[in-house]
This record gives sequence, structure tokens and C-alpha cells, in this order.
Amino acid sequence: MIAAIIFRMNAAPPNDTFLRACFCQPTPYTPVWLMRQAGRYLPEYRATRAKAGSFMGLATNVDFATQVTLQPLERYALDAAILFSDILTVPDAMGLGLSFADGEGPRFARPVRDEGAVAALAVPDMAKLRYVFDAVTSIRRALNGRVPLIGFAGSPWTLACYMVEGAGSDDYRLVKTLLYSRPDLMHQILAVNADAVALYLNTQIEAGAQAVMLFDSWGGVLADGAFQAFSLAYLQRVLAQLKTQHNGQRIARIVFTKGGGLWLEEIAAIKPDVIGVDWSVDLSRARRQIGQQIALQGNLDPNVLFAPAPKIEAEVDRVLRSFGAPGGHVFNLGHGISQHTPPESVAVLVDSVHRISRGMREAA
Amino acid sequence: MIAAIIFRMNAAPPNDTFLRACFCQPTPYTPVWLMRQAGRYLPEYRATRAKAGSFMGLATNVDFATQVTLQPLERYALDAAILFSDILTVPDAMGLGLSFADGEGPRFARPVRDEGAVAALAVPDMAKLRYVFDAVTSIRRALNGRVPLIGFAGSPWTLACYMVEGAGSDDYRLVKTLLYSRPDLMHQILAVNADAVALYLNTQIEAGAQAVMLFDSWGGVLADGAFQAFSLAYLQRVLAQLKTQHNGQRIARIVFTKGGGLWLEEIAAIKPDVIGVDWSVDLSRARRQIGQQIALQGNLDPNVLFAPAPKIEAEVDRVLRSFGAPGGHVFNLGHGISQHTPPESVAVLVDSVHRISRGMREAA
Repeated sequence: MIAAIIFRMNAAPPNDTFLRACFCQPTPYTPVWLMRQAGRYLPEYRATRAKAGSFMGLATNVDFATQVTLQPLERYALDAAILFSDILTVPDAMGLGLSFADGEGPRFARPVRDEGAVAALAVPDMAKLRYVFDAVTSIRRALNGRVPLIGFAGSPWTLACYMVEGAGSDDYRLVKTLLYSRPDLMHQILAVNADAVALYLNTQIEAGAQAVMLFDSWGGVLADGAFQAFSLAYLQRVLAQLKTQHNGQRIARIVFTKGGGLWLEEIAAIKPDVIGVDWSVDLSRARRQIGQQIALQGNLDPNVLFAPAPKIEAEVDRVLRSFGAPGGHVFNLGHGISQHTPPESVAVLVDSVHRISRGMREAA
Repeated sequence: MIAAIIFRMNAAPPNDTFLRACFCQPTPYTPVWLMRQAGRYLPEYRATRAKAGSFMGLATNVDFATQVTLQPLERYALDAAILFSDILTVPDAMGLGLSFADGEGPRFARPVRDEGAVAALAVPDMAKLRYVFDAVTSIRRALNGRVPLIGFAGSPWTLACYMVEGAGSDDYRLVKTLLYSRPDLMHQILAVNADAVALYLNTQIEAGAQAVMLFDSWGGVLADGAFQAFSLAYLQRVLAQLKTQHNGQRIARIVFTKGGGLWLEEIAAIKPDVIGVDWSVDLSRARRQIGQQIALQGNLDPNVLFAPAPKIEAEVDRVLRSFGAPGGHVFNLGHGISQHTPPESVAVLVDSVHRISRGMREAA
């Protein structure tokens, strides 16, 4: 106990730049973190992954999950950590039987494709996801105030895509056939998913997550009209249930619809604290659309990290200047970092974001 | 000669509804055609494909290409025919060695990845593509004025994706690495592609194509800024060279950037006659953005065709009403029709478009 107190006293002052930016408060520079920052592009991640034997072996082991979450922070001056886990833990806890075949992506043994399977769905017992909450607590303790910890979940629609397709898809034929043919069943799935995701994120918050992000990775594949009815409405149902405070601290809530650039005003209307955007979005236009009360997160093309350092700096500069104003921007990629990324490119990225955004504030 | 004249005199009056809609002129109903309407969902297509032995065997044989182009018109009251071919014929004619492995998609034996390969690129001799122009002439003759014939090409950027990647891709890592690392080489590729595509389309027009469509299938994967520099600028370079008239007839020029809904104003600024849009776009908003001088083509989600007939009708109704006005809309899917589509769904779609759009005009 005394050792813990001394350790805390000796720790660096907490870096809350990320949370301040999420709440559109002034920051000395633009904070940056990267989707999938704890991942295969890092040799130390691959070493831990090899020890764990499998992806789920890694995600379900608290020590391993803590270790890989912190790995990118040892290399780079990132302003946030994100829980190492997977969006499919929730449908797995619903009993769908998740597995990851090497090189093939996730697969469910029992996909949800008929009335009976839909009727059997229920919000899972959070005890089945205890490994996630234990990891959150462990990571938060290991971070010791260094940077905030982000928890996350898949959006109700994105989870439904995997639950119905049973795996990844390139045409979403099965899930859209259900959506168009049996919208009643689709709404049932989405309602269960929304309530499960809300409980899951609230439990992450109680375990120590200071921000939570909803990954609506497949919202962008929906038609206009269908997006509002089958994704946005359920993002709203999650947000309505989420804690906005915990232990006196405000919780940042981030919504990221990949390919959702056409619907920013509508996403803003459900009032997340932060909207994540991919690289197709012009940040200055996005700011005009969503106003000054909601922050933006994004949006460098991850493929920029395959270019030489001066080009990475130039593209970082472009993204920062397209956002413009000093507050309310969390720098990120527009999608998860590629496993083929040279680790040294990430150092260039993080340092450029900090240096250029400080310079912009000084010049202002 | 006399037989031909008699045949023409007996033919149904030419249906120019599609062309009139392309030029924003009044039409008695909204014309409809479907991307990939001559394709694997039709049993008669699969039969011809089996006879031809391979995809390129089908595309390079004038009789087979004519036959499959006309097959969907025998079944459905479609308002346009589209040349049966592939966008990769142009890079194939550049010497890149195209092949289609069954179930794997296209592949180039000699992808373009370095300075030497880029320097060797040139606008191909159109004699190598004579099978395409002969097919256009043959199809036009077989159509005999029944409906207009659309020719097409891939956009310079979309062709470059395949030329650099050497095949399809899900992350565009190689082509974007080249784009960000060696923009000079990328611009060289795109300039050659644009001039090749313009010559290719003009030769199709001379052979009988009454409209031409540029498929910018991968424009939507570019970042804001990169899209304008690496796709739009070269679409403009093509348009600037295209014939706007042939034999006293105006030629309709269609640009379709899949995932390009955020850039409609900018696409409108290069002044195509028609902008194709995918299902993520709200047609009423799109009309406000591009004005009254440019028509819109789209945008039903092809997965709607897996729903029962009443749902297909309801979604057709929704798309027609979201466009609203009586002129300047060409009904289409937002992407190519799926090979798994039940053929009877297409009949429901085509009939609904005609019936509902006639009803809307009568009610107005």
C-alpha cells in the first residue's frame, strides 16, 4: 500500500490531453493515438502473441492483454492507451462460438440466421466477459495515470453483420437479405446487441475505462435510410444507456462509423462527445457540419505510413491544418494500422503530430 | 440491304428514354438498366460462358459478346444495353498480361511497380482492342434501335489500382505506397491511362456506342485531397478528350465513383452528363448539390433483390421518390448485380421502376 502511494507520487504528471481534446477543451498540442496501435506491426507484440498461442489466448489472459496494451506506449509518446481485445467478445459471450483461424479472420460456429436463433439471443451474463474487465483494471493500474485508457465495443449493426454472416463478408448478402426480408428479426437482434453493448461498456467504465469507443466498422455499407434505421438508431440506444461520469470523472464517448462521412450531421445529433472519421472526410467541412460541441477523431490514411518520413510529416501537417482550430481534435488514422507498417514510421507520425500542432498553437 | 431496310421499318420505335434522361430531358417514365445486367445470375449467360470456356474467351468473341449483351433485354424491359466486356482490357492491351483464374478474379502477369515499368507504359495500339470495337458494332446492329448502347472503360485511377497491385486488393497498400512515396510515377501512370481510356472510348463511340461510362470503382478508397489529385483530375482529362457528338447524335458521358458521395460537387464541376451514385447517397440531397444540368444514375442496394417482391417494390418506390423530379434520373443499382440474384427479382425491379415512375408523373 505504501509502495503503491510512493510509486504514484513519483509518477509523471498525468497526461490528460486526450480527454481534454475529447471534450473540446484547449490543449497544448493535438493528442494522438492509433487504432490497433497494439498489434502485429510491433515485433514485441508478435513475440507475446507467439507465447499466448492464439489471438483469443492473448485476449483472455489478463497479463498478456496488459502487456500488449502497454507495448506501443513504451516506444511512442502516444496520448491514450486502448484496451487490447476484440469486438466479437460480446457475441462470443452470447454463445455463438467464436474462433480465429490463422489468416482467415473470425468465424462463428453458430451464426444467427433464423427466427429460432434470433429468439434465443439475450444480453449475456457479464461474468463470461470478466477477463475483459479484469484486463481493464489491470491495464489502468499499470498505466498509473500516464495516459487515459479507452475501452471499446463493436456497434450493434457491426456485431450483427458478423453474427448473421458467421464471418467477414465482402457483399453482406446474408445480413442484408435478413435486413430487407425480415426487418423485424433484424431489429430484434439489434436491440439485444445494443443493450449488451451498453452493459458491456458500462462494466468497462466501472473497471477503469476513462473513454469508450463504438466501432461501427460496417455502418458505411448500409444504404441511406437503412443506416439511420439499422445502425444509427442502435448507436443512439447504446449512448442513451452509457454512463457519462464515473467516480466524479467525465467519460468520453466516441462513435466511429467507417464510411459514414455522408451522415455526420445525423451522427452528431445522437450527441457522442467525439465522432471518428475516415480519410475520405475533409475535416474542415466536417467541423462546419457538426459544430463546436463535438470533437473529431482521425483521419490519416494508414497507407501514408509506407511513405518516407518527410511525406508522413507533410500529410500530418495537411490533416492538422484541415482541422485548423486548436481544440477538439484527436489525431488518429482513418482505420486500423496495417500489420505491414514499419514501426519507425509511427515514431515519425507521433512526433510530427505533437511538434506541428504545438507550432500551430504558438503561431496562432 | 433491302432485307435490312424492311427489318428496320418493322422494328419497334426506338426507345431513347435512357438518353433523354441522361440529358435531363422529360421522359414518360424513369429508364432503368443494371450494372452487370449481362452476367452470372442469368442461366443463359452461364450457358454461353461455358461454351466460351473462359471469361476472356467470352469477351473476345464478337458473337458471344453480342449474344450475352442482348440476353437480359430478352427477359426484361430494360432501357439500355451495355457492352459486355471488362475494364481491364486496356491494361491488357498495354502488355500487362491479364488472366482470370476461376474464383480468384483478375490477375496481371506483369504488374507496374517500378520506374522502368512505368516508363515502358504507353497508350496501346487500338488494333489490339479491335475485338471490343467489333463487338460494339455487332451489338449496335443487333439492337437495331431497340435501346441505346452504352460503352465503358475503367477510370485511370481504378485501372492503376489493378496495374500496380497486380490483382484485386482489400487495402490498396501497394498502389497507395506508390502514390504517397512516388507521386511523380503515379501521375505518369495516370496520364497514360487517361489518354488510353479517352482514345478507347472515342473508338467505341465511332463503332456505335451512344453513351460511355467511366467506372471509377476504386475512387472511393482515396483520402480527401488524394481523390481530387489522383482520380478526379484524370477523369477530367478523359472527359476533356471525349467526343460529345457522333454522326449528329449527342453522346452521353457518365462518371461513377463508387464511394464518392462526399465529392459530388467536385465531380459535377468536371461536367459529365450523368453522375452515378451508390446506395449510401440520398438522391434528394445529391440533386441539391449538383444542380439541374447533370443527371443522376442509381442507386438501389443490389441486396434488395434478395427480398420478396413487395419489399423490392417498396424500395424502388423509396429511391424514385427520394429523387423526386420527373427528369434527369436513370434508375440503376448502386453497384453491379450479384451473381446470386434470383432472375425473377429483376423482373419485379424493372416493372416497378416503370410503373411507379409513370404513376408519379401522372399524379404530378
